Amino acid sequence: MWKAVVYVTVKEGVLDPEGQAVERALHSLGYGEASGVRVGKYIELTLDTADRDEAESRLKQMCEKLLTNPVVEDYRYELEVASS
Amino acid sequence: MWKAVVYVTVKEGVLDPEGQAVERALHSLGYGEASGVRVGKYIELTLDTADRDEAESRLKQMCEKLLTNPVVEDYRYELEVASS
Repeated sequence: MWKAVVYVTVKEGVLDPEGQAVERALHSLGYGEASGVRVGKYIELTLDTADRDEAESRLKQMCEKLLTNPVVEDYRYELEVASS
Repeated sequence: MWKAVVYVTVKEGVLDPEGQAVERALHSLGYGEASGVRVGKYIELTLDTADRDEAESRLKQMCEKLLTNPVVEDYRYELEVASS
């Protein structure tokens, strides 16, 4: 059993409308010091796979096929033995 | 100048419909080994503040007021000197 965490970010150079909306909202609340806001995703999941290499290979497929949009998003992941 | 990263997760015990939808989609794509999928947010921002304590105190306010919903979400953050 593996615990995986995937961080999904909008690629540099790609417009991030959600980040822009958050930034405007922060400014209107008086937090003018905030800039460069980018909003991505943080995905936790458990993988019931015995072998680490297989877990990693399958996790990459999940990222490319469903968890991210590889055209406009980057991702990185962490994989560790699940404690339970 | 500080670089802040905020990780927002749905509290344990709170239903995560987005995570459930992703889990079902993974299963239907043949990734039956995936379980316990939780989807949160990963927010990067720059803070133009001279003092670290002030940056941290203001960042906490931003999290409580706008970036998260403290009733159903937990958050943690990292704060480091911006490289530029």
